[in-house]
Amino acid sequence: MNIGFIGLGRMGAAMATRLLMAGHRVTVFNRTPAKASALVAKGATAAASIAEASRGDAVMTMLANDEAVEEVVLSKDGILAALPSGALHVSSSTISIALSERLTAAHSRAAQLFVAAPVFGRPEAVQAGQLFVVAAGEESAIKAATPIFEAIGQKTFTVSETPKAANLVKLSGNFLIATVIESLGEAMALVRKGGIDATRYVEILTSTLFNVPLYRTYGGLIADGKFEPAGFAAPLGQKDIRLTLAAAEALGVPLPMANILRDRFLTLLAHGCEHLDWSAIGQLAAKDAALAQE
Amino acid sequence: MNIGFIGLGRMGAAMATRLLMAGHRVTVFNRTPAKASALVAKGATAAASIAEASRGDAVMTMLANDEAVEEVVLSKDGILAALPSGALHVSSSTISIALSERLTAAHSRAAQLFVAAPVFGRPEAVQAGQLFVVAAGEESAIKAATPIFEAIGQKTFTVSETPKAANLVKLSGNFLIATVIESLGEAMALVRKGGIDATRYVEILTSTLFNVPLYRTYGGLIADGKFEPAGFAAPLGQKDIRLTLAAAEALGVPLPMANILRDRFLTLLAHGCEHLDWSAIGQLAAKDAALAQE
Amino acid sequence: MNIGFIGLGRMGAAMATRLLMAGHRVTVFNRTPAKASALVAKGATAAASIAEASRGDAVMTMLANDEAVEEVVLSKDGILAALPSGALHVSSSTISIALSERLTAAHSRAAQLFVAAPVFGRPEAVQAGQLFVVAAGEESAIKAATPIFEAIGQKTFTVSETPKAANLVKLSGNFLIATVIESLGEAMALVRKGGIDATRYVEILTSTLFNVPLYRTYGGLIADGKFEPAGFAAPLGQKDIRLTLAAAEALGVPLPMANILRDRFLTLLAHGCEHLDWSAIGQLAAKDAALAQE
Amino acid sequence: MNIGFIGLGRMGAAMATRLLMAGHRVTVFNRTPAKASALVAKGATAAASIAEASRGDAVMTMLANDEAVEEVVLSKDGILAALPSGALHVSSSTISIALSERLTAAHSRAAQLFVAAPVFGRPEAVQAGQLFVVAAGEESAIKAATPIFEAIGQKTFTVSETPKAANLVKLSGNFLIATVIESLGEAMALVRKGGIDATRYVEILTSTLFNVPLYRTYGGLIADGKFEPAGFAAPLGQKDIRLTLAAAEALGVPLPMANILRDRFLTLLAHGCEHLDWSAIGQLAAKDAALAQE
Repeated sequence: MNIGFIGLGRMGAAMATRLLMAGHRVTVFNRTPAKASALVAKGATAAASIAEASRGDAVMTMLANDEAVEEVVLSKDGILAALPSGALHVSSSTISIALSERLTAAHSRAAQLFVAAPVFGRPEAVQAGQLFVVAAGEESAIKAATPIFEAIGQKTFTVSETPKAANLVKLSGNFLIATVIESLGEAMALVRKGGIDATRYVEILTSTLFNVPLYRTYGGLIADGKFEPAGFAAPLGQKDIRLTLAAAEALGVPLPMANILRDRFLTLLAHGCEHLDWSAIGQLAAKDAALAQE
Repeated sequence: MNIGFIGLGRMGAAMATRLLMAGHRVTVFNRTPAKASALVAKGATAAASIAEASRGDAVMTMLANDEAVEEVVLSKDGILAALPSGALHVSSSTISIALSERLTAAHSRAAQLFVAAPVFGRPEAVQAGQLFVVAAGEESAIKAATPIFEAIGQKTFTVSETPKAANLVKLSGNFLIATVIESLGEAMALVRKGGIDATRYVEILTSTLFNVPLYRTYGGLIADGKFEPAGFAAPLGQKDIRLTLAAAEALGVPLPMANILRDRFLTLLAHGCEHLDWSAIGQLAAKDAALAQE
Repeated sequence: MNIGFIGLGRMGAAMATRLLMAGHRVTVFNRTPAKASALVAKGATAAASIAEASRGDAVMTMLANDEAVEEVVLSKDGILAALPSGALHVSSSTISIALSERLTAAHSRAAQLFVAAPVFGRPEAVQAGQLFVVAAGEESAIKAATPIFEAIGQKTFTVSETPKAANLVKLSGNFLIATVIESLGEAMALVRKGGIDATRYVEILTSTLFNVPLYRTYGGLIADGKFEPAGFAAPLGQKDIRLTLAAAEALGVPLPMANILRDRFLTLLAHGCEHLDWSAIGQLAAKDAALAQE
Repeated sequence: MNIGFIGLGRMGAAMATRLLMAGHRVTVFNRTPAKASALVAKGATAAASIAEASRGDAVMTMLANDEAVEEVVLSKDGILAALPSGALHVSSSTISIALSERLTAAHSRAAQLFVAAPVFGRPEAVQAGQLFVVAAGEESAIKAATPIFEAIGQKTFTVSETPKAANLVKLSGNFLIATVIESLGEAMALVRKGGIDATRYVEILTSTLFNVPLYRTYGGLIADGKFEPAGFAAPLGQKDIRLTLAAAEALGVPLPMANILRDRFLTLLAHGCEHLDWSAIGQLAAKDAALAQE
């Protein structure tokens, strides 16, 4: 397929590389052109504009937030205006339910196909072909996107014919990860104040009931107090909890744990910690308990 | 070793069986004598009293709560009075930090050895030799208990020379499991109201980031609304959160997520659900959102 | 002064009446023209359009929410386009901080004066001349608005030269009222389950420490379970808590009590109670405790 | 009446003084005898022991917590042992529901009358005859206590024939006061970060909807950051929230706002602030928001 790719952060670059490895022709665009070079070296074509990257069979976007997606898709020179009728937009960014609805409506009016396809996995997982894709969209759009999904991930879960459902799954997933961070932060503050070594504690947890990388990774970061460099920066975590709460409000679902997470992120960011990894909320329970960082 | 075993619920019976299988001589006692018969059939000796089960090298207790442990250990005809000087008490019950301190002091005054050794695992795990033991106590006591630990579990984590530290790890572990239940309950209420099938959702989660039995088990129970028969009854869950909060208060550690769990259990029990599994708190987010059980 | 008045709900009508009583010439406009008739009978002039009501010395708005204010002020035929340079807009609606900022900037660009002047008090208080006004705006704008404030209320508190500060005070005030409702709901659930009569309890509270109409009114409504007709409907309460949380997020202030209120409103509205008074959140603690309505 | 009085803290001393002023013969006892001197100077008799103060028509206790009440009433040489059959114990201390039940049962077995009669008001209010009494007990006991109530307060509210009901009202009242402190702390953090002067803000609140000494007092303390000397020390506040939560758990009532208060007190005390007034929890919202004390 002829595929445009817009948004070459660490995740996007890895995903575009997978598309190239699978034999697709890939045209890349990034606001910061330097990031395109590495992909060009691997066989991609550099586009001079969003429009230029939107003239193939499909265009894929992997951007930081709602504002970036609005700009790239809906602005005058954006994807919506350039994408041919019948062509496909695969949006993998973590965005709000409300924006997903607007994109769905806009692409529909333009007779373009649209799939929301957020992903679960870190950049290393993408490279190893271990990404998971959660997709939603009309059957024809999902069908058109299948070669893309096969190229970038190990498995795709189609959850609905309504694109926003996939975005909701992604937001809920990030919410669940954040609850893991907070719960570990609380449990570790408790046992540390009871005289137990935090690293030893994480070892016990992750050898037994919580024998899964997620707990090992975040437990280790909290035990070590190592929140730099940020794998996923705190403001992004805050954004995802905000979007989760907005979706929950629109759907009429109280989420008490999300409220706690919201307050943790506000506290963290109020103290000038926007450069830290989002797992840094895991140290706040210890601070409330007047524990010094180990 | 000559080992007494008191408390033959499902967990205790499985643990006593493992001791027999490892070649120890086991004398069992249970308030309800019928429960001892199955063990006698496997080679155990039935004791007519707590004291009679407390005259060997060691006595092990696996009881439901503080009240039962107080009664069995500290009453006039209890373990403390019968256990020989130098002999060992291994307490595997999930009890309060405060009671663990009292037991430690009492056994010390009586020149008896004492180890707190709560376990992680369900009865089936015990039978399969896959139990995990978290132990704390003085070095000599831990050493004396080692053959017991080797018989009942696959691995023992020694965390401290102070017994109550092991109880704290156990309470914190149950707190973490309860946070998993609640977080799944909230996430599933959210996605269900967004039109996503709960079972499909759990499949996605547990194929990806949460690929661990704990999430699979509880996610499945919540998706199915299947809270009977209770594997671990709601009042026991409430008790463990109460003990966690009590320990946290004594240590000066605020635990906002434990507060949410506390309220969930109170709501559940106020509505007459003491016969349900503790995972039934995972349906309360859906009720607040006015979702019918699937 | 020649004053336009837009938004003739119960509060707006009472405020416009006060302006007439003070001798001002008042031109009224309301989307539902019927509501203007009563004011015309008292001496007001009916305007056929927003623009027609915006050509005097000042125009005052008292509308339900951000959407209405945006429409009335910022749309093509709105106040901004019609108000003469140097004339004044007094906005008394409870709106978001973000919209208040936009209005401030827009009026400034148009060389118009702008004051945010939300009020505290119910319609009856307005009639009795007992309204309180919280005002913010540039000195010249406040000065121009002073005759209006003197006409509608008993006292005006000027809090800042930045209009949005007054909106923040209003939001925080409604947040405080909602905390009173929730705290009474919790306390009354507790004592009722302890066998104490709720009405008697409110009498004790409001004869002693809480001897103030606010507690008497809301305590009485909760004790009686009387949430209809709505004096201030639940969706408006939810809106104000949402705006409070949005302001708090923008300013970086965690508000744990506002989170509880947010969830209470979501629960209430999820159960189809949008027709009830916002004090109906005060019955949810009793429902969680499985208490029947008295 | 011949009345013994035990517990001469600031409140107790003021109450004993009122009894003397009303013409009763008062025998005082205090663990720290020096505190009795001032009362003796006003006409009281000093007792050398609890028993000596318990031989009249009635004995009144005003003590700090459950432990003190248990010691004074239930120990070998306590009130229970010394009080004549048919005589009366009026307990005004803020104690747990559980202890109130124990006292009720013990006095009943001893054929003594018992009334729980906690009070609302500060020492200055007692002196001015403005104390409020909330009383519960059997009709005969209430009748016997009436002259005491008339001497110490301006009004008595009888709420139940079961003494613990009065203790529950008292606990719930202190819970409500603490919610006022916390809600003011949150609202003030919000408006301060929005550029509004805290003292000015309290003035607005207490001139309008919250025109009551409680809000004025605590609003002022928080605005000034003046938490010393403690009128009611933080550990006493924590105790009352703990007892409220314990009562709520026993009755099956979730209290989300009490959970927030619990965590606030834990945070405050973990940071070594046990010497501060309980209203110091009102500064924690500002700390979370990274605001410096004004």
